[in-house]
Amino acid sequence: MRVVALAGGTGAAKLLRGLAASLDPSALSIVVNTGDDAEVWGLHVSPDLDSVMYALAGVLDAGRGWGRADETFRCLSAMAAYGAPTWFGLGDRDLATHLVRTHALRAGQSLSAVTADLARALGVAPRLLPMSDEAVRTTIRTPDGRLGFQEYFVRDKCQVDVLGVDYDGAAGARPAPGVLEAIRDAHLVVVCPSNPVTSVGPILAVPGVADALTATRATVVGVSPIVGGAAVSGPAGALLRARGLPVSPIGVARAYAPWLRVLLVAREDAACAPELAAFGVTAVATDVMMPDRERETALARVVLEQA
Amino acid sequence: MRVVALAGGTGAAKLLRGLAASLDPSALSIVVNTGDDAEVWGLHVSPDLDSVMYALAGVLDAGRGWGRADETFRCLSAMAAYGAPTWFGLGDRDLATHLVRTHALRAGQSLSAVTADLARALGVAPRLLPMSDEAVRTTIRTPDGRLGFQEYFVRDKCQVDVLGVDYDGAAGARPAPGVLEAIRDAHLVVVCPSNPVTSVGPILAVPGVADALTATRATVVGVSPIVGGAAVSGPAGALLRARGLPVSPIGVARAYAPWLRVLLVAREDAACAPELAAFGVTAVATDVMMPDRERETALARVVLEQA
Repeated sequence: MRVVALAGGTGAAKLLRGLAASLDPSALSIVVNTGDDAEVWGLHVSPDLDSVMYALAGVLDAGRGWGRADETFRCLSAMAAYGAPTWFGLGDRDLATHLVRTHALRAGQSLSAVTADLARALGVAPRLLPMSDEAVRTTIRTPDGRLGFQEYFVRDKCQVDVLGVDYDGAAGARPAPGVLEAIRDAHLVVVCPSNPVTSVGPILAVPGVADALTATRATVVGVSPIVGGAAVSGPAGALLRARGLPVSPIGVARAYAPWLRVLLVAREDAACAPELAAFGVTAVATDVMMPDRERETALARVVLEQA
Repeated sequence: MRVVALAGGTGAAKLLRGLAASLDPSALSIVVNTGDDAEVWGLHVSPDLDSVMYALAGVLDAGRGWGRADETFRCLSAMAAYGAPTWFGLGDRDLATHLVRTHALRAGQSLSAVTADLARALGVAPRLLPMSDEAVRTTIRTPDGRLGFQEYFVRDKCQVDVLGVDYDGAAGARPAPGVLEAIRDAHLVVVCPSNPVTSVGPILAVPGVADALTATRATVVGVSPIVGGAAVSGPAGALLRARGLPVSPIGVARAYAPWLRVLLVAREDAACAPELAAFGVTAVATDVMMPDRERETALARVVLEQA
């Protein structure tokens, strides 16, 4: 069974670890958001690609949910002494990933190619695909102007009003090689429990991706990142509201219309099933929280059962 | 008294530490070799600028003679896992210097400007001047082809035959802002005990520098890096030979003709005084070894006495 997942960062990383443990990992392709890529100290940082890659390699920092485990921050403190911005706290081991990526990109390699090289070196078996090799930048509109996603998310800790979200560059971007083919040829497409607006939204904004999701014969199953009226983590609530969508599985289903077929929701949200059905989405109430590896794998199995 | 020093790396760093301790450090300008600058992992590394800067900031690693003290190599080991070359072993704290420099250069800043910023942040009072803001690359001709200086020096540990040395780009390079003025206005010019061919040679190859040394009214005093027929450290012996120069204070004086006035030599080399006099160079026999801070300062005082 060929499975394609659409993924953001932290929440996706957990479910993907469960999926990779529950099927032949080489049958899994993961299309990852690059809308929140950022330049830090002149380095190209791809937070979601790295969270997914580190999780699948078994080196993700469990406490922070991003970056590498067993990390040190010696370069960061030396950067601080030089007056460089340190709100995006790159660790010493993590730096290697950004150095290799930046050097390859400057040498003319594609993001897809260097992502494959990095993943191979870390022993990651599933295929990691950036959504596009071209730059798409998620930008947050606020009363005081536009912010890059990492400025909004990390630097300002989401403590600003969101008027809207733009995916700069998306209209002219092409899906990375393999993305559309993977969606077309999959038996199951999984929309990970990621932020619908700023994690999955940028993937859907790349021309061709939404059409491929509509056209695929695969079952498209999502996992709701909204439980009991709030995001499990991160700013999905505020961002759904900024989009005029309810902060509930209904908002998630509307963000993924018309191609979403099944949505896994928390048991406490089971009552939304009839309304979801009106959108053509079958609700499956289950345990969507993933506090440990066992629950990651259990949720992955429920996802795979929908094929 | 205004003092200008021409400097390479390790040996120069010691004497400069002594000079900075022996005079008003703001009266000291240091013109540093950038011929052995290299790109490592896509970063612009300036080994001699950094050795001098770290020495004057009190953070130079005493054991290695380059890089930062109290260093770790966590990024390096992660780079090794990615298959990146690791023969140029950049430390985690040292990386910050190369990141700041590379980012500034890519943003269009000059090497002079970012060098001044780095030195200021580290509390270095003497003025650090790269010999040029343009790229000059010291290249070693060997029977098997041409090697960048760091490939020859660090990767191959000088274990190849040297047929000759080129300063690629020197003919078209201009001295960095302030270099010629500093030499013109100095009371004393000090040629540090650095390799005459690959440390001081590139500085002299920048058009205008040798003329300024000939024209200045300053006393020009050198310290011989050759003691008892061999280099105190590094490959100066092999490189002088490749230039057809004797491995002795005579070879040093010939490399610095016609503008060198005084050469400090080891007591065991005092016998070369008459031959040096024939080149117009006054030999001063003294203790030229600098195993500790006290001897660095003592040698600096002998240098300053020549003004």
